[in-house]
Amino acid sequence: MGSSTGQIFCITTFGESHGGGLGVVIDGCPPGLPLDLEAVQAELDRRRPGQSDLTSARKEADRVELLSGIFEGRTLGSPIAMLVRNTDADPRAYASFKDLYRPSHADYSTEARYGLRTWMGGGRASARETLGRVAAGAVARQVLTSLTDIEIVAWVDRVADLSAQVDAETVNRAAVDAHPTRCPDPAAAAAMDACIRAARKDGDSVGGVVRAVARGVPAGLGDPVFDKLEADLAGAMLSLPAAKGFESGSGYAGTFMRGSAHNDPFIPGPTPGSVRTATNHSGGIQGGISNGMPITLSVAFKPVATLFQPQQTVDVKGQPAILRAKGRHDPCVLPRAVPLVEAMMALVLCDHLLRLRALRGDAALTHR
Amino acid sequence: MGSSTGQIFCITTFGESHGGGLGVVIDGCPPGLPLDLEAVQAELDRRRPGQSDLTSARKEADRVELLSGIFEGRTLGSPIAMLVRNTDADPRAYASFKDLYRPSHADYSTEARYGLRTWMGGGRASARETLGRVAAGAVARQVLTSLTDIEIVAWVDRVADLSAQVDAETVNRAAVDAHPTRCPDPAAAAAMDACIRAARKDGDSVGGVVRAVARGVPAGLGDPVFDKLEADLAGAMLSLPAAKGFESGSGYAGTFMRGSAHNDPFIPGPTPGSVRTATNHSGGIQGGISNGMPITLSVAFKPVATLFQPQQTVDVKGQPAILRAKGRHDPCVLPRAVPLVEAMMALVLCDHLLRLRALRGDAALTHR
Amino acid sequence: MGSSTGQIFCITTFGESHGGGLGVVIDGCPPGLPLDLEAVQAELDRRRPGQSDLTSARKEADRVELLSGIFEGRTLGSPIAMLVRNTDADPRAYASFKDLYRPSHADYSTEARYGLRTWMGGGRASARETLGRVAAGAVARQVLTSLTDIEIVAWVDRVADLSAQVDAETVNRAAVDAHPTRCPDPAAAAAMDACIRAARKDGDSVGGVVRAVARGVPAGLGDPVFDKLEADLAGAMLSLPAAKGFESGSGYAGTFMRGSAHNDPFIPGPTPGSVRTATNHSGGIQGGISNGMPITLSVAFKPVATLFQPQQTVDVKGQPAILRAKGRHDPCVLPRAVPLVEAMMALVLCDHLLRLRALRGDAALTHR
Amino acid sequence: MGSSTGQIFCITTFGESHGGGLGVVIDGCPPGLPLDLEAVQAELDRRRPGQSDLTSARKEADRVELLSGIFEGRTLGSPIAMLVRNTDADPRAYASFKDLYRPSHADYSTEARYGLRTWMGGGRASARETLGRVAAGAVARQVLTSLTDIEIVAWVDRVADLSAQVDAETVNRAAVDAHPTRCPDPAAAAAMDACIRAARKDGDSVGGVVRAVARGVPAGLGDPVFDKLEADLAGAMLSLPAAKGFESGSGYAGTFMRGSAHNDPFIPGPTPGSVRTATNHSGGIQGGISNGMPITLSVAFKPVATLFQPQQTVDVKGQPAILRAKGRHDPCVLPRAVPLVEAMMALVLCDHLLRLRALRGDAALTHR
Repeated sequence: MGSSTGQIFCITTFGESHGGGLGVVIDGCPPGLPLDLEAVQAELDRRRPGQSDLTSARKEADRVELLSGIFEGRTLGSPIAMLVRNTDADPRAYASFKDLYRPSHADYSTEARYGLRTWMGGGRASARETLGRVAAGAVARQVLTSLTDIEIVAWVDRVADLSAQVDAETVNRAAVDAHPTRCPDPAAAAAMDACIRAARKDGDSVGGVVRAVARGVPAGLGDPVFDKLEADLAGAMLSLPAAKGFESGSGYAGTFMRGSAHNDPFIPGPTPGSVRTATNHSGGIQGGISNGMPITLSVAFKPVATLFQPQQTVDVKGQPAILRAKGRHDPCVLPRAVPLVEAMMALVLCDHLLRLRALRGDAALTHR
Repeated sequence: MGSSTGQIFCITTFGESHGGGLGVVIDGCPPGLPLDLEAVQAELDRRRPGQSDLTSARKEADRVELLSGIFEGRTLGSPIAMLVRNTDADPRAYASFKDLYRPSHADYSTEARYGLRTWMGGGRASARETLGRVAAGAVARQVLTSLTDIEIVAWVDRVADLSAQVDAETVNRAAVDAHPTRCPDPAAAAAMDACIRAARKDGDSVGGVVRAVARGVPAGLGDPVFDKLEADLAGAMLSLPAAKGFESGSGYAGTFMRGSAHNDPFIPGPTPGSVRTATNHSGGIQGGISNGMPITLSVAFKPVATLFQPQQTVDVKGQPAILRAKGRHDPCVLPRAVPLVEAMMALVLCDHLLRLRALRGDAALTHR
Repeated sequence: MGSSTGQIFCITTFGESHGGGLGVVIDGCPPGLPLDLEAVQAELDRRRPGQSDLTSARKEADRVELLSGIFEGRTLGSPIAMLVRNTDADPRAYASFKDLYRPSHADYSTEARYGLRTWMGGGRASARETLGRVAAGAVARQVLTSLTDIEIVAWVDRVADLSAQVDAETVNRAAVDAHPTRCPDPAAAAAMDACIRAARKDGDSVGGVVRAVARGVPAGLGDPVFDKLEADLAGAMLSLPAAKGFESGSGYAGTFMRGSAHNDPFIPGPTPGSVRTATNHSGGIQGGISNGMPITLSVAFKPVATLFQPQQTVDVKGQPAILRAKGRHDPCVLPRAVPLVEAMMALVLCDHLLRLRALRGDAALTHR
Repeated sequence: MGSSTGQIFCITTFGESHGGGLGVVIDGCPPGLPLDLEAVQAELDRRRPGQSDLTSARKEADRVELLSGIFEGRTLGSPIAMLVRNTDADPRAYASFKDLYRPSHADYSTEARYGLRTWMGGGRASARETLGRVAAGAVARQVLTSLTDIEIVAWVDRVADLSAQVDAETVNRAAVDAHPTRCPDPAAAAAMDACIRAARKDGDSVGGVVRAVARGVPAGLGDPVFDKLEADLAGAMLSLPAAKGFESGSGYAGTFMRGSAHNDPFIPGPTPGSVRTATNHSGGIQGGISNGMPITLSVAFKPVATLFQPQQTVDVKGQPAILRAKGRHDPCVLPRAVPLVEAMMALVLCDHLLRLRALRGDAALTHR
């Protein structure tokens, strides 16, 4: 059950870092949509390792194969299955810690839950698991584009204590992708770059914060009380590997404000009868429902658990041991987390958009 | 669909601030459990307004009535329905802003979604909606107690910029409930009390942070990838009124650390073959699965949206207007949020415990 | 989990024959619908015992109380909860077989599943459980009427070996309700009446078949492959007490035909470009999707398990015993099953109609 | 949403008769189970066309590829994805009726729902869709075998008006597979064989009934009220292509009996304190919950819609036309439906067995 998400635009991912491959089945995609498979591949390419010398040096092709759900270039309304093959990873890299629990990895908890685990790589906890999500997110984005003007942009907003200055109203993907850090503030990006390299040099790792915005979201998305838009976004983001925190709108910073400063006054919007807010501390969501203002959120990612320093741990028999990791790993997950955050945001918004259609039968939400 | 949560221990809440009543239906509660209805009422009493002069002066009895699912004091395995009647609220308190959108409330977004809203109180966005959750959470807690040693404690950890010093390993409910602020650090509690009174005097409001811990949680809870324990906890917490942020374990603070400091070394546990971690930055969850260490989290609550200062807004026709609120409202939601956070935590853990039984048929997880 | 059904128009029923009451929570009802509570009560009155001397002589008021989800007469889009109180049933009627398993009742299997059961009446297996379904079905019907021209009629088509002649294209509720048997063929109704009285005189019971038709169903309802319209209708009908069989369209009779006789030729419909079929062996569903022709189905109901003859059984210790039932029971469930079949049909069609709106955003399926 | 079924042992199928392939993702399979992939392949071979001259002459390899969820031969508890490639079907066979709606096929209703359809074969309505179900059913069977003594056997019980005499208590797979008709009554099998050949000679088709039994089912399976065991079995069976009817236990025949003859008396079972019934008209299910007796059911399959006689129809513009089918098709779906019925039965029982573990944490239901 845990590998599916979404009520109407429902996705199920599968696959581990070993074995035949990874992928996703999308059930509930509206029919008749021209599917741009190149755009799906482009998103997979954005999350792929080896894009720059900041990230892991592994080279994986990660070419997506479409298995079903499309005819003559259009969605049929039947399940869209997509597959990415595993390249033959070298399990010898993992053999030396087959019997050790890597600190702050999922090795121990996985074995506690399932009674066994695959020691050849991280199994289902591997970052490769996100391939299916990114592919599905790219399809969700195309659904959103066909029905609305929604535009989603995520970026690296902080690495360790290095914060960027970014305007959520205007930031775009070109600016984000201009630097390998995926931070659109050039000065901050340069500092982050140095920080990440320093950590790598020390065999260490760093964490940080991704921020994201969705502009052009219609008012009315979100299904109180348990599927409030913030609740579903929070759940989606915390399902990402290494995510440890979530903020909607003003988040934790807002808790330092008084209500008189935090409340967003309503003001007349640009068209007659329309409404907007003067500020957007609410992050585009009030009472768990979108209000038409940009949706803003942040996700905290912990420093990568894989280090190249000796670490204290225990073996599978509970005896003390020292772990010495090998191989090539990202010292900072943030740049590659950007497409993941965007994918999860697209999935949640797409599902809620279709749920709104069920509720309202909304003529405004049909293919254009 | 949005009023249900949980895969196996599945709850559905109903009710608005007006109308016949509010309540919950619990489907999937294990049979044969002696149900302590007084304990359910006690939790409802903890969330009730009017408990101290720090909270709203409204007086509501909020007596719970059991409608089904129990026979001779034991759960039948059939749906447990519980009802709390609305007292006859005075709609005149709301009449003056029937046609105005209250800033940072759900009025506008609700109307955008549903095309109508109840102006007599907050409707489904009212804090009264949480009655059903608290009642269900109290039942979940009894299930947890019958199957495990899980102990859940939440407390007010920060109000505005006033932070408490609390030891998550030892804090207990008696310490939390000792002060009306529900902050177990007496010095901080006194400061918070003054801060809340000052805000009220100004017709203003303040926000803050609730922290919570679950001790004695078995390893193995959480269903990757979308129902990771952190994902479900985050979703549950962000479904609470006024919640704007969530942290698991080290959360945002952890993103300032390097991996070598953040990783939790495994060490031998107290019994032969058992395992624990030397630190607990992971907050008891690794790879989305509990590892047996205390589960720690925080939830950010924004300052209450209802103020007693004139506020800029628009009316339902989009014309500028000034809102002047009346009535009695809490200037700070934090003390009353404590039982809500505990209830949501109990619901998520209970559901995942039963999911683990389905997966493993675990003899260790039967009634004791 | 088993007390909920429907993906979008999702209902959860609760309640046993003892205890505070029975009812239903409807989540996902479209907002803005004027709700006719009298029409809901009228459906409950149709299923009530004591309507004629053919059915049980018990008198229950079964007045429905609306708890939530409505404001100023219209649906809010939030959960609609409805409650029917239990009258104080006399448990002494059941005391004599507290320790016996009634043959072909749910006593034994319930105890096998849950480890306990309520011996004061049938608990969740009581016919009273259907109250919530009928109330929800009446709301579903109002949604269907607001969005489409769908008309649902069920009738008693056979009792024991007495079959009626009924034209599914024209039969209406007035004809069905004209006779206490709910058989619209007067000659057959008279024979059925005598048959049921004869069984009752013998302390025995009889079974039979309810047929139903839904006319005016738009083409396109049904979600292959597991939620084909026939699959959901079959599941809904077999969830009714005493149901043991289901047919869609030609059903079992169709299996005696060759394909050349069974296939339904397509012919031009009444309006240009429209399509219908010359025959309707498919019962309005092809490939699990409605094709615009009337949907026809049948449900087999076994003879009532409660008899007034001594019956062989065992007690809760497995020792042989003789059961001698007392009280007043229906010798034939068929007349009262008619509103149940209609309610389940309305619930399935309503859910699929809203699912179609999610898929297509269909402007034709908005309130009229 | 419609391509998934099961609450805990949840499967999602994908694939059409054209395109890259068909398959299934199983989420929720218990971990640590040795998976016999050859047994999965053997079930796929049983449903494959071209097994005898009674069925379609198409030759498809239908080799299953395991993509995920297994490590060193054991289930990991993560999603098990399996893929069967499409061989390059010749779309020219379909080109001649690209613009015609084939009578009693899904062409018209599919287009009504989705606005488009794949004319190269039946798309999602093709019998090839069942590949994923059969593969998943074979895994479900292995779970059942590892946890219980459940044994599932289905057989062809009737073709047209030719009925078999089969003892549900003893019939086994060897007897079923001994004849290409999959009827274990040799005399009836020979007659059915002749009947099917006669229909084929006439370019026509025949229908019939499959019966099935599950022996060794523990008492307690089934989740009232909407997920009663009969409800889920009925839904599962009616989701199969060409299915038009379902019976549990005595089914329609039972409606001709009086209650005194139909009720199943309880008698002491073979071991002290155990209980069984003297007759089994209930088909092993009472109140929607298994009672430990054999579960018996039947499924009606209509005559195959594809004929080799000219048929009246309309084209996509609604104009009258004559359809002349080509190619090779089964004149009777019954023999190949046997493994499908078994697969669906295994899926339903497996899901309910795991649901029972969640409810009871049953130590008796752990791997042996």
